[in-house]
Amino acid sequence: MEFSANQIASLVGGTVEGDGNVAVSTFAKIEEGHKGALSFLANPKYSHYIYQTQSSIVLVRRDFVAEHPIEATLIRVDDPYATIAQLLQMVAAMTAPHPSGIEQPSFVGEGVELPEDVYIGAFAYVSAGAKIGKGVKIYPQVFVGAGVEIGEGTVLYPGVKVYHGCKIGSRCIVHSGAVVGADGFGFAPTDGVYNKIPQLGNVVVGDDVEIGANTAIDRAVMGSTRIGNGVKLDNLIQVAHNCEVGDNTVMASQSGIAGSTKIGRGCMVGGQVGFAGHLHIGDNVQIGAQSGISKSTPDGARIMGYPAVEYGEFARQTINLRNLSALYRRVADIEKRLSDTDRS
Amino acid sequence: MEFSANQIASLVGGTVEGDGNVAVSTFAKIEEGHKGALSFLANPKYSHYIYQTQSSIVLVRRDFVAEHPIEATLIRVDDPYATIAQLLQMVAAMTAPHPSGIEQPSFVGEGVELPEDVYIGAFAYVSAGAKIGKGVKIYPQVFVGAGVEIGEGTVLYPGVKVYHGCKIGSRCIVHSGAVVGADGFGFAPTDGVYNKIPQLGNVVVGDDVEIGANTAIDRAVMGSTRIGNGVKLDNLIQVAHNCEVGDNTVMASQSGIAGSTKIGRGCMVGGQVGFAGHLHIGDNVQIGAQSGISKSTPDGARIMGYPAVEYGEFARQTINLRNLSALYRRVADIEKRLSDTDRS
Amino acid sequence: MEFSANQIASLVGGTVEGDGNVAVSTFAKIEEGHKGALSFLANPKYSHYIYQTQSSIVLVRRDFVAEHPIEATLIRVDDPYATIAQLLQMVAAMTAPHPSGIEQPSFVGEGVELPEDVYIGAFAYVSAGAKIGKGVKIYPQVFVGAGVEIGEGTVLYPGVKVYHGCKIGSRCIVHSGAVVGADGFGFAPTDGVYNKIPQLGNVVVGDDVEIGANTAIDRAVMGSTRIGNGVKLDNLIQVAHNCEVGDNTVMASQSGIAGSTKIGRGCMVGGQVGFAGHLHIGDNVQIGAQSGISKSTPDGARIMGYPAVEYGEFARQTINLRNLSALYRRVADIEKRLSDTDRS
Repeated sequence: MEFSANQIASLVGGTVEGDGNVAVSTFAKIEEGHKGALSFLANPKYSHYIYQTQSSIVLVRRDFVAEHPIEATLIRVDDPYATIAQLLQMVAAMTAPHPSGIEQPSFVGEGVELPEDVYIGAFAYVSAGAKIGKGVKIYPQVFVGAGVEIGEGTVLYPGVKVYHGCKIGSRCIVHSGAVVGADGFGFAPTDGVYNKIPQLGNVVVGDDVEIGANTAIDRAVMGSTRIGNGVKLDNLIQVAHNCEVGDNTVMASQSGIAGSTKIGRGCMVGGQVGFAGHLHIGDNVQIGAQSGISKSTPDGARIMGYPAVEYGEFARQTINLRNLSALYRRVADIEKRLSDTDRS
Repeated sequence: MEFSANQIASLVGGTVEGDGNVAVSTFAKIEEGHKGALSFLANPKYSHYIYQTQSSIVLVRRDFVAEHPIEATLIRVDDPYATIAQLLQMVAAMTAPHPSGIEQPSFVGEGVELPEDVYIGAFAYVSAGAKIGKGVKIYPQVFVGAGVEIGEGTVLYPGVKVYHGCKIGSRCIVHSGAVVGADGFGFAPTDGVYNKIPQLGNVVVGDDVEIGANTAIDRAVMGSTRIGNGVKLDNLIQVAHNCEVGDNTVMASQSGIAGSTKIGRGCMVGGQVGFAGHLHIGDNVQIGAQSGISKSTPDGARIMGYPAVEYGEFARQTINLRNLSALYRRVADIEKRLSDTDRS
Repeated sequence: MEFSANQIASLVGGTVEGDGNVAVSTFAKIEEGHKGALSFLANPKYSHYIYQTQSSIVLVRRDFVAEHPIEATLIRVDDPYATIAQLLQMVAAMTAPHPSGIEQPSFVGEGVELPEDVYIGAFAYVSAGAKIGKGVKIYPQVFVGAGVEIGEGTVLYPGVKVYHGCKIGSRCIVHSGAVVGADGFGFAPTDGVYNKIPQLGNVVVGDDVEIGANTAIDRAVMGSTRIGNGVKLDNLIQVAHNCEVGDNTVMASQSGIAGSTKIGRGCMVGGQVGFAGHLHIGDNVQIGAQSGISKSTPDGARIMGYPAVEYGEFARQTINLRNLSALYRRVADIEKRLSDTDRS
């Protein structure tokens, strides 16, 4: 699918400068531009790329002033970044599959009312008592347990499993292989044998949440494991029973949270981070990749390491460790010198 | 569902002290008690909470002596902890789904005999030659490979995959997305290309084992990868080919065991721990979260760190690392002092 | 199934020395040999085991000269290691399941042409426009998205999910629970809320690739996430959007690669390694388990640690850290000595 500069400008309310008939079929970063690609220039730091980019069209601010000749066709808009995001959304809407209807065979239990515009893929299983919102897409091989609630517009990609009694909000995206509501890891040790503690709670996921492929969020022993609104969880993450993740917190792949730990709002957690259980992590905390978090942490902290310390301290420890061989030599020198002095 | 103090007391053989008609519908920790909740007091350390708890009913020992007035209704029993576990089991039995029968469409291969009380969910696939024990629950979208044996009372939650030839014992619980018996990671490098070494063995899982969501246990190259009786594996764990995990060992989420490593009985392994291959880990070993285990370890060891060392040594290393900047300053001071001495 | 020494020798073109009628039904390492097992001796370092092995048959080189009596029957061949690999392949071909045909119910979308020798398991879903090569095996509960291409001879084990538009090469093996082509983790933060950046690209997997159970490879934001020919990825690995993994690189379980990082050819990556985003890792790099890679790395580097450093430096740092308590004491001694000197 190709679009000309004139077509794009009329779509996004921009003005064309240069050849309005030049056409693009893809996007590219301005520094990786090529013929047939659309790029954008939002950050003035990257302005120098516009004079050498191979991209056919570049979106720029209305007030952009060229200092050299530019080969690409320009489209002037209010906010190039917002415009490119809008265009990406339009392309996504055109190119992504739009499955609809109820495919057969699928399994829909007693008492489940399906809104008209829902998609139920073949081999999907919706248990009795589940409540499915408008516009929900349940792809093939998904399992929705008894009494589960799925909010409007939420997408469950192929193979997602949601255990009985869990609630997922509106406009969420849950990727293949994610498991919501499996039993928490709770056992009572008696004479060296572990007896299962029944996990009676559920998982409650807010609105606008994205859950990555093969991520696991366990149900609470009692009450709920809670994922706040706007939370983004990457792939292969573990959230243990009774944890809470605050609104708009993002967490990168393969991180894990042990039982009952509560993480605040607006936090950014790197990949492969581990949290011990029963911690309170404040709001807007930033945590570096692979950190081990063994203590509760106040709002706004920036920590990393194993065990985690404040960013600057982590850098100091790393440098100190690298320089240790030299320190050993310096101490040995001092000892030798003192020993020589003694002897003299 | 509500239960009065009188009803609960008669269920568990306790005696009521206070208002026998007060009713509860949930459980809560004594320190987080609220109206309508049942709590228990087992550990005398927590006795002070009983005078201020908001819970409506508290289970206490028969010999408990109150030192202040208590608002909650008490139920006196022999062992409050055992009683609460018993009540949780009763509630779990009432509230969890109890699917039964053979749902359609499902796939049951030739020569598979299904006991009367088995559950086979829709879209489950049971291959030819599989042996399914009494009371087994095979949820929707489960795959049971050729010749697999599943012991009595075992539950395979939605989407579990068990490759051909593997054996799972009785009363096991396997959570969604767990994969038992995929090929071990074995290749013979020849001129920079890796040729697959066929993985001819299987996985043998004992009785009373729980396997978490999205955990992977690989089949052996020859012989068996073995998971002992009573083992509890959390979510997203990796067990490589030819590993052995001893009876009643518990392992937290996202830990991984490289090929041929043998872990003893009664071990406790934290989250995100990694074991190198071909190790022997003794019985009753405790390992802290995120540790890297590169050496075999005797019975009863308590280790953590990367590379792992004994608990006390890990604490010392952490403190030594934190204090290094001060040590650098002390050495610089000494050097300056000696240099001044020289000059004087 | 039993095979006599004479039968094996005729299969592999070897010559028998000893009792040609002795039979074996399994393989064993020469040092763990037992009656009824076949072993091999390729590495002269292990020659001493041949005089005490309990194995019934041992494959040896044609030029092997015994220095003591040997109980086992010998089969002389050109290359015992290659021969044993050949025999393993033959046994694998005989013992592994060979499903074939189109099982029902399965779902095959419009415009999909299925070659004659393909296997489509029950409850598998092949979307419209998918291209399926000769000899492909699609096990039960697999999802193949719209327009996906699967090359000749590739095996998708039960429950594999491949999102729309992705390409998988020939002779690949993808294990249960692996997810290829879920959305990359891309969001634009605006006023503390994260807006999804549509992920318009795909995943392109080369030929002869093996992908482990529950591994996740995300689609690119634009363009392709690329897995080269001959790459072997173990279980539970994360490959983020726009990453590239070079030909014949092998990566052990639970490692993760953040967005846009490119890894060269012939690399060996240990388990639980984490790579930061936007790095360039050279060819033939070796990385120890649990390392944290935060910087680009030249060809042939051998690194480990968190943050990763060269192997020798990692060993030094580990030793330096272990000896720190002694260094603190030495510095304290020096300080005391200088203080005594001052006072004297």
